[in-house]
Amino acid sequence: MLENIDLSVSMSKEEYKTRIDDLYIRIGELQREAWKMAIPIIIVFEGWHASGMAEIINRCIIGLNPMGFRYHVTTKPTYEEEKKPLFWRFWRDIPAYGSIGIFDRSWYSRTVIEYLDRKGDKDKIERCVKKINVFERQLSDDGYLLIKFFMHISKEEQQKRLFEYKKKGIPLCVVDEELDYFNEYDNYKSVVDKIIECTHTEYAPWTIIEAEEFNHATVKVLSTAINMIESRTIRRNNLHFSSQRTKLTSYSACAPKISEVDLSQKIEQDEYEEKKDYYQERLGELQYKLFRKKIPLIVVFEGWDASGKGGNIRRIVKKMDPRLYTVEAVGVPNDLEKSYHYLWRFYKKIPEAGHIAIFDRSWYGRVLVERVEAFSTEEQWKRAYNEINEFEEILADFGTIIVKFWLHIDKKEQLRRFENRENTPYKKWKITPDDWRNREKWDAYLEAADEMLSRTHTNYAPWTIIEANDKKYARIKILRNLVENIEKHL
Amino acid sequence: MLENIDLSVSMSKEEYKTRIDDLYIRIGELQREAWKMAIPIIIVFEGWHASGMAEIINRCIIGLNPMGFRYHVTTKPTYEEEKKPLFWRFWRDIPAYGSIGIFDRSWYSRTVIEYLDRKGDKDKIERCVKKINVFERQLSDDGYLLIKFFMHISKEEQQKRLFEYKKKGIPLCVVDEELDYFNEYDNYKSVVDKIIECTHTEYAPWTIIEAEEFNHATVKVLSTAINMIESRTIRRNNLHFSSQRTKLTSYSACAPKISEVDLSQKIEQDEYEEKKDYYQERLGELQYKLFRKKIPLIVVFEGWDASGKGGNIRRIVKKMDPRLYTVEAVGVPNDLEKSYHYLWRFYKKIPEAGHIAIFDRSWYGRVLVERVEAFSTEEQWKRAYNEINEFEEILADFGTIIVKFWLHIDKKEQLRRFENRENTPYKKWKITPDDWRNREKWDAYLEAADEMLSRTHTNYAPWTIIEANDKKYARIKILRNLVENIEKHL
Repeated sequence: MLENIDLSVSMSKEEYKTRIDDLYIRIGELQREAWKMAIPIIIVFEGWHASGMAEIINRCIIGLNPMGFRYHVTTKPTYEEEKKPLFWRFWRDIPAYGSIGIFDRSWYSRTVIEYLDRKGDKDKIERCVKKINVFERQLSDDGYLLIKFFMHISKEEQQKRLFEYKKKGIPLCVVDEELDYFNEYDNYKSVVDKIIECTHTEYAPWTIIEAEEFNHATVKVLSTAINMIESRTIRRNNLHFSSQRTKLTSYSACAPKISEVDLSQKIEQDEYEEKKDYYQERLGELQYKLFRKKIPLIVVFEGWDASGKGGNIRRIVKKMDPRLYTVEAVGVPNDLEKSYHYLWRFYKKIPEAGHIAIFDRSWYGRVLVERVEAFSTEEQWKRAYNEINEFEEILADFGTIIVKFWLHIDKKEQLRRFENRENTPYKKWKITPDDWRNREKWDAYLEAADEMLSRTHTNYAPWTIIEANDKKYARIKILRNLVENIEKHL
Repeated sequence: MLENIDLSVSMSKEEYKTRIDDLYIRIGELQREAWKMAIPIIIVFEGWHASGMAEIINRCIIGLNPMGFRYHVTTKPTYEEEKKPLFWRFWRDIPAYGSIGIFDRSWYSRTVIEYLDRKGDKDKIERCVKKINVFERQLSDDGYLLIKFFMHISKEEQQKRLFEYKKKGIPLCVVDEELDYFNEYDNYKSVVDKIIECTHTEYAPWTIIEAEEFNHATVKVLSTAINMIESRTIRRNNLHFSSQRTKLTSYSACAPKISEVDLSQKIEQDEYEEKKDYYQERLGELQYKLFRKKIPLIVVFEGWDASGKGGNIRRIVKKMDPRLYTVEAVGVPNDLEKSYHYLWRFYKKIPEAGHIAIFDRSWYGRVLVERVEAFSTEEQWKRAYNEINEFEEILADFGTIIVKFWLHIDKKEQLRRFENRENTPYKKWKITPDDWRNREKWDAYLEAADEMLSRTHTNYAPWTIIEANDKKYARIKILRNLVENIEKHL
C-alpha cells in the first residue's frame, strides 16, 4: 500500500489556519458524542522513524478534552511487560467505553521489533499478523472503533530529518538504547508493506498519511478520524456488523462429557492421606522448577456451587511458596471492569513467567452465569467461545501451561452440602440466597457447562471433569492431574 | 527491641493441630467483619533472611478468603518503579477499604537496601524513618489498620537454614541478582533494631515473632492479628484516635494572598504574540533538558470555573513533545478511587523521572470543592493541608519541580465568560448547572482558596497567583513563570 503514494502534497499556512479551528471544534464535539454513546476509540499512529509522529499527534490532541483520552507511547517493554505475552500491555491500555486511547507506535512496532528478525521470515510474519488481527477483531466485535494511521515519508526525507534532529539535540527515542529497526528504511519497507496489507481489514482499516509536510498531515489525520467517528456514531444501532472472523484454531472433538461421568468413585482415608502428602510435596518441588524455567501456569476451577473449589485450592497451595502463586477469586466485575471489554480484567490477572495463577471461577463466567442469567446477550456469549479459545491460545503460545477443572457433583449431593453449611455456624456465611436461586436453574447451567466443555476443550488448554461427590477422590485426582501436567511440560 | 527475646519457644505438633482450625475460623470471621465495616488492613512481614517468612505467611493466609486479600512480594524495583519515589509503589499497592494487603517485605526492606549504605549514616536513617512514619500515619489517619511483624531468628539458626536451602535448591529470592543485605546479620542488627524502635508507634506497632519454630510463629502471628482486628472492629466508632503527627516541615509564612491581587493588569497584542512564541519555543527546548537530566515536573492548575485553566494548558503544551508530557484532568473520583485513601489516585498520576505532568485541578480538590460541598468531613479536609505538604515534599525530595498556579478572576469577569459560553454554540457544552451553583458559593470558595494558599505554600512547592481577568496577561505570566522555574532547577 505504500507504493505510488504522492508524497509531495502540502498545505499552505493560510489554508491550515482557516481549517484547523473547525476541525478542533468538530473532533471535540464527536469526542463528547462518543462519550455519551459509550463508544471506545483506539487511534494508532505508526510510521517511519523521523516521520514527525509526535508533532502531528500533539497538534491533533490539542482539540480533545484531556479528561476523555489517554496517550500511550509504546517503547521497549518494561521488566514486568517482558514477563507477559506481547499483547498483555496493549490489553491493559485499551480505553474504557466512551474514551479514546491514542497509541504512538503500538503492537505493530513491537511485533516488528520483538518478533521479526531481520530476515523477515514469512511464516513468522503470518503468525504475527494473525495475532494482530485477532486482537483488533476482538475489540471491534465489542464495539471498539479502530483508526490506524501510517506516517509515510521517503527515504531521502528521513535522512534529512535525522540529520537535523541530531544537530538540534532532539532525542530520537524517549527510552534509551533500543535499536530502531525502522531506521533501516529499505530493509524494512517490504515487511512494513506486507504487514499493512494483511492488517488492512474491514474492522480496522489503515489510512496512509503523507507526512512530509505537517499541515497537510495534521488536517488529513483529523478529517479521517472525524469521518470515521461520524459514521460510527450514526450507524450505532447497527453496531455489530458481520466482521471477517479470524479463527486461530478449531476446538478438539474429544471433549469430556458430563453425562459420561461416574460420580460414585471413592477413595479410602489411608490412601487419601498418603497420596495427598506425596502430591503436595511434589507440587512444592515442581513450583521451583517452573520458576527456574520461567514457565507460567494457570489453573482454572469451575464447577457447581459447593462442589469444593475453595477447599481444593487450599490443598493445592498447602506446600507452595506464596511468592510464586496467587489465587484469583473471580466474582461480579466492578464498575471499572464493566467499562472495558470483558477479557480486560483477566489479562490483568495472568501470571508472569515462572509464576502460578489459580482461578476460583474465571473468564468462563461469560458462558456460564452470564449466559444463564442473561447478563450477556446471546450474541455476546456465543462469540465468547471463540474469544476464549483465542485468549488461551495466546497464553499457551507464550509457553503457559493451562489446566482446567470442572468440579462435578449431583443435585442431591449439593443439597446435602448446602444444608450442612446452613447448620454449621462457621460455614453459614458461605451460603447465600443466590446459591439457592442458582440451584433452581440446574438444568440451564448443565446445558451451559456441557456446551462450554465441548467448545473450549483444546489441545493447548483441555478440560478435565472431576467427579467430586467424594471430596477425597476429587482432591487426589486434581493433585495428580496437576502434577502430571506440570511434569509433562518440564 | 530484638534484645532479650527468648528464641527457644516452640509449640508441639499436637497443640498446633488443636489450635490452628479455630484461628482460621476466627480470622475468616474477622475478615468478613472488617469487610462489612470497610476497614482496610495492612499486614507487614519483615525479618531476617531465611527466617521462614514465606512458609509462615502461607500457613496464615490459608484461613483467608482470597477474594478479600492481596499478597505482595516486595522485591527489587522494576524499571517503572525506579523512576518514581520509593513510596509510589507502596501507595499503588495499599488495599482498598475493607480489604487486606499482605506485604512480604515492604518499605522497610526497601529503605534499608535502597537508602542506607553499609555505614548506616545516622542522619539518613532518621530521614528515612520520618518518611516511613509519615506514610503509616497518613494511612492510619484514614482508618487503615497496620499490623507489623518482625520474624526473628538467631545468627546460628540463619546460617544453618541458608545451608539447608542451598542443599535443597530452594531459591532464596524470587527476583534474580539482588544483593541481600539482611544476610549480613551482625552488620545489620543495629540498623534493624534502630529502625524498628523508631517506627514502633501507637498507630503502627511492631510485634516481634520468635521464628525458629514455625508452629509457634504461625500461632503467634494469627493470634496477634486476630487481637488487633478485634479491637479495631470493636472501637470502630472511636476511629480517629489522636495519633502523634509527624510533621516533616512547617509551611512558609509568605504565602500569596488573593486580596492583594491587582486584576487590572493587561498586556498588548503585539507583546503577547512575541512573548508567547518565545516562551513556547523555550519550553520546547527545556523539556528535553529535563528529560536528559531525569528531572520530573509537576504543574498544578487550580482556579475559578472559566478562569482559563484549559486554554492555558493548551498553550503550554503547544511546542511540547507528547511523549514527555501528560495532561491530567481531575474530576470526581470513580468508584474504585473512592475505595482508597484520597491520595491514592494522585500517586498513580505523578510523572516519572524526566517527564511532565500537568494537572487541570488536582489533590487540592480536597480542601476546595470537597470542603465547600461537604464531600469531606471537617476533620478530613483540615488534616489534608498537612497530608498535601507531606505528599509534595516526598515528590520534591525525589527531585520533582512543583509549580502551582491559582488562576484568579473576579465575579463580574466570570459572569461575562459564562454568558459568552452559553451564547457560543461550540462552547456551550463547557457550561453546566454545576458552574452556576458553584458561583453562588463564591465567598465560601474564596475563603477555602485563601486558606489553601496560606497553608500549602512551601519552599519546595510554592503557589503563584495568576491575575487572569486579562487572558493574554495570564498566559504570558504562566509561561514565563514556568520557564524561569525550570531554568532555576537546571
